[in-house]
Amino acid sequence: MKIAASLAAAAAILAIASPASAQFAKPEDAVKYRQGSLFVMAQHFGRIGAMVNGRVPYDAKAAADNAEVVADMAKLPWTGFGPGTDKASSPTRAKPEVWSEQIKFKDHADKMQGETQKLLAAAKTNNLDNLKAAFGPTANSCKACHDAFRKE
Amino acid sequence: MKIAASLAAAAAILAIASPASAQFAKPEDAVKYRQGSLFVMAQHFGRIGAMVNGRVPYDAKAAADNAEVVADMAKLPWTGFGPGTDKASSPTRAKPEVWSEQIKFKDHADKMQGETQKLLAAAKTNNLDNLKAAFGPTANSCKACHDAFRKE
Repeated sequence: MKIAASLAAAAAILAIASPASAQFAKPEDAVKYRQGSLFVMAQHFGRIGAMVNGRVPYDAKAAADNAEVVADMAKLPWTGFGPGTDKASSPTRAKPEVWSEQIKFKDHADKMQGETQKLLAAAKTNNLDNLKAAFGPTANSCKACHDAFRKE
Repeated sequence: MKIAASLAAAAAILAIASPASAQFAKPEDAVKYRQGSLFVMAQHFGRIGAMVNGRVPYDAKAAADNAEVVADMAKLPWTGFGPGTDKASSPTRAKPEVWSEQIKFKDHADKMQGETQKLLAAAKTNNLDNLKAAFGPTANSCKACHDAFRKE
């Protein structure tokens, strides 16, 4: 009885100490969270892309605002890939490698976050050439991770 | 032919001038965007709620970090309710009143954003009582809008 209580206490401590698994009520919420944050980020990133590619006129304020959201959102999705979230019943394109190659996955995630910070800095210079120069590497960091860790 | 070209140009200008409808490739993207941003916000708000209600220990840094995300996310969903997004084919609980009572809806949205700013300020004081005092009004601003504009 005492052992069971100790185990329960230890499990509770572990749950608090392990942000990734503790932060979501169920694995499906983690999937919804990571998909939601990545989708929001992609929308704002796409608006910068439209300016970079000349599909819409360059608007320095809009570019900086969008880059701000992109950089903020880039920090979020990762806890949604925590331990056990590969067992969620919701549809997902995440490959098993997300969980079996965690160091590589984290490298990609860190790389992308770094690029979004550079994109934000570039956007704040109010110079379209700077924005263009930072856009490509950011887009490549998205693609590299998708190629390695996302199903078609 | 000239008239058609003028109309096309006018339509293009309108599309650029009207952020809500122009920012999404299709209405379903707007729904996904608003649902995603609201879900991400709710997750972080829930983590503050868990501290306020004593379900997890108070952690001033975590509270401030979560409040930061809540305040940032609170700014986002609204463009996802733009004109025409009530015609999206995706499942949604948004009531028709979102579009037929736009002034009231905007009041609720503004109110909620204001409360999340107060919540962030309270979280930054590193004082649980301040956090508790700001949590209730924020939660009420969520609920008021859900009661009026979201189906069960």
